[in-house]
Amino acid sequence: MTKLSSNLSTIPFVSVENMMQIVLDEGVEDAMAQIAVYIEEDFRRWPLFDKTPRVASHSRDGVIELMPTSDGVDYGFKYVNGHPKNTRDGLQTVTAFGLLASVDTGYPLLLTEMTILTALRTAAASAVATRHLARPDSQVMAMIGNGAQSEFQALALKRICGITTVRLYDTDGDAERKCGANLADSGLKVIPCRSAEEAVLGADIITTCTADKQNATVLHDNMVGAGVHINAIGGDCPGKTELHADILKRSSVFVEYTPQTRIEGEIQQMPSDFPVTELWQVVTGAASGRTDARQITLFDGVGFAIEDFSVLRWLRDRLAMSTRREMLDIIADPDDPKDIFGMLKRAQARRMTA
Amino acid sequence: MTKLSSNLSTIPFVSVENMMQIVLDEGVEDAMAQIAVYIEEDFRRWPLFDKTPRVASHSRDGVIELMPTSDGVDYGFKYVNGHPKNTRDGLQTVTAFGLLASVDTGYPLLLTEMTILTALRTAAASAVATRHLARPDSQVMAMIGNGAQSEFQALALKRICGITTVRLYDTDGDAERKCGANLADSGLKVIPCRSAEEAVLGADIITTCTADKQNATVLHDNMVGAGVHINAIGGDCPGKTELHADILKRSSVFVEYTPQTRIEGEIQQMPSDFPVTELWQVVTGAASGRTDARQITLFDGVGFAIEDFSVLRWLRDRLAMSTRREMLDIIADPDDPKDIFGMLKRAQARRMTA
Repeated sequence: MTKLSSNLSTIPFVSVENMMQIVLDEGVEDAMAQIAVYIEEDFRRWPLFDKTPRVASHSRDGVIELMPTSDGVDYGFKYVNGHPKNTRDGLQTVTAFGLLASVDTGYPLLLTEMTILTALRTAAASAVATRHLARPDSQVMAMIGNGAQSEFQALALKRICGITTVRLYDTDGDAERKCGANLADSGLKVIPCRSAEEAVLGADIITTCTADKQNATVLHDNMVGAGVHINAIGGDCPGKTELHADILKRSSVFVEYTPQTRIEGEIQQMPSDFPVTELWQVVTGAASGRTDARQITLFDGVGFAIEDFSVLRWLRDRLAMSTRREMLDIIADPDDPKDIFGMLKRAQARRMTA
Repeated sequence: MTKLSSNLSTIPFVSVENMMQIVLDEGVEDAMAQIAVYIEEDFRRWPLFDKTPRVASHSRDGVIELMPTSDGVDYGFKYVNGHPKNTRDGLQTVTAFGLLASVDTGYPLLLTEMTILTALRTAAASAVATRHLARPDSQVMAMIGNGAQSEFQALALKRICGITTVRLYDTDGDAERKCGANLADSGLKVIPCRSAEEAVLGADIITTCTADKQNATVLHDNMVGAGVHINAIGGDCPGKTELHADILKRSSVFVEYTPQTRIEGEIQQMPSDFPVTELWQVVTGAASGRTDARQITLFDGVGFAIEDFSVLRWLRDRLAMSTRREMLDIIADPDDPKDIFGMLKRAQARRMTA
């Protein structure tokens, strides 16, 4: 019988449904704790990664980005969009998918939804930053912006950093109620607030995660007291920031990858020589994190390709122990690699005799 | 019943098997003729495209590239590798997949294998170049390099440019015999040759399509006579060229996208101000193609994202009339777009009651 394609030509694909089941198999909090370990592993070997600022295609209402990286053995990339106006039409602001491939052969190894994975890795990365930068006795987090990322941020910081209380605020009351309801049985004490000013009262950690594509000022200078750690997560493209510049001047600022963050992060408001420390250097011990209990530390998180790579590695390892995947016939695999045409000819012959 | 995901969240996926059937539904030659029309359409509106040189990740044995572009309405990108050593292990030198997405929402619209599509669009693009640049009475093509792309090149130039004879040569005799056998009932007169020098005898068109990642000299200056049109297809990355520099000096050189071709094409051997004409300008009439029967014209083809965009558009239009696709659950689509976590919670609740 004519072989049209062998098993070599199919790759595992993880659908949204299977991803939900994989995450539930582990438990959301444990999944993020595991992912944080993968992120720290990759932060420790940061210099060996092939790093490129994401390739962005901007349009009036949003952006589509490709985020590639490689550790020399595996290659990963993510496709991700950001369209804040989408929620008005019942669509996601951010959707994503991605893949791992072999650097040796260039062959894809794994294709997966990454909307859920991005939510998990973003929260896990905030938790890694917070664990290294916040005061160790931090227990109360203000969560400003209660959209799709908020519950993951809260649970990752509970599981990985030991926060016990989350103070919620969103300009959209429905979003705030949704977040509160989702966290009701989480073991966190949840305090809904009527303003950002109220939310930050007594907070050890302030996480901002809003989605407007404009320079908004979610956090004013007088709202940030000594000793606070800030995760500024929502500003992630040119023209999209959340913090007043005066906060940056008082803070020690930590970033993922400086060239990208200078374009996309809060520090796009600052001169190009504004001092920052890359988080991986704190993780390896090459640079200091927090040095004093009254210091304001700021993680200016925009999301970097290496974090996606980490979560793709995590998924691959989970799949080794799981059947929650489909096989996708996406790689043409003729018997003779120089003979794509012959593969078509044999398919034609098969049609004639069918 | 709890809705986990709606139909909105699935996108059409074209597997290798379905792609073969779609191409066979049209016929290989007709498919390439149709694709050539889409390429010419996009060449005519070239200035409105978002153009970025491909994003390449080079490694010892190959390269993995992402090739994005957009016409402001649709966004397309292709993942493609190039690993010449792969054929030694029975793997493809080039594999590819790609997608179309909506610029308005950032949502993927279509995911597809692109190994076969790339073969078709590469040959169709060569045919577009040849139709505009070769002498109108051209009938004989020398095909140097008889790998996976060769039959498509021969058939596209037969169907679109009217060549009647193809003279084959490959350093790998098996590849040459394979190509000859595949073209045996094509209506082309096929002449196997024992050297590149023999292959070019009497040829009106010379197409080089070899795959070594090194500066090879497939074509020497004394092999190229007056009036010939050359398609140099195989050189497509830094350090990979096929022609002796002296040929370039005697030729009128046409390229897809100058910044990319200066890095990846034959003209990487020349100074950065070496004159070239972009092919789209010839298609629109803004620039001259061939002006004289003794002129040597050279299409220094490296493959550009807009050609992939054209073939993705072609595929989308074919799918509107075909059921040869699967639906892929790749976009998380919670009932409330701000509530990814709630989607997980409902999946959890469903597990508990199952």
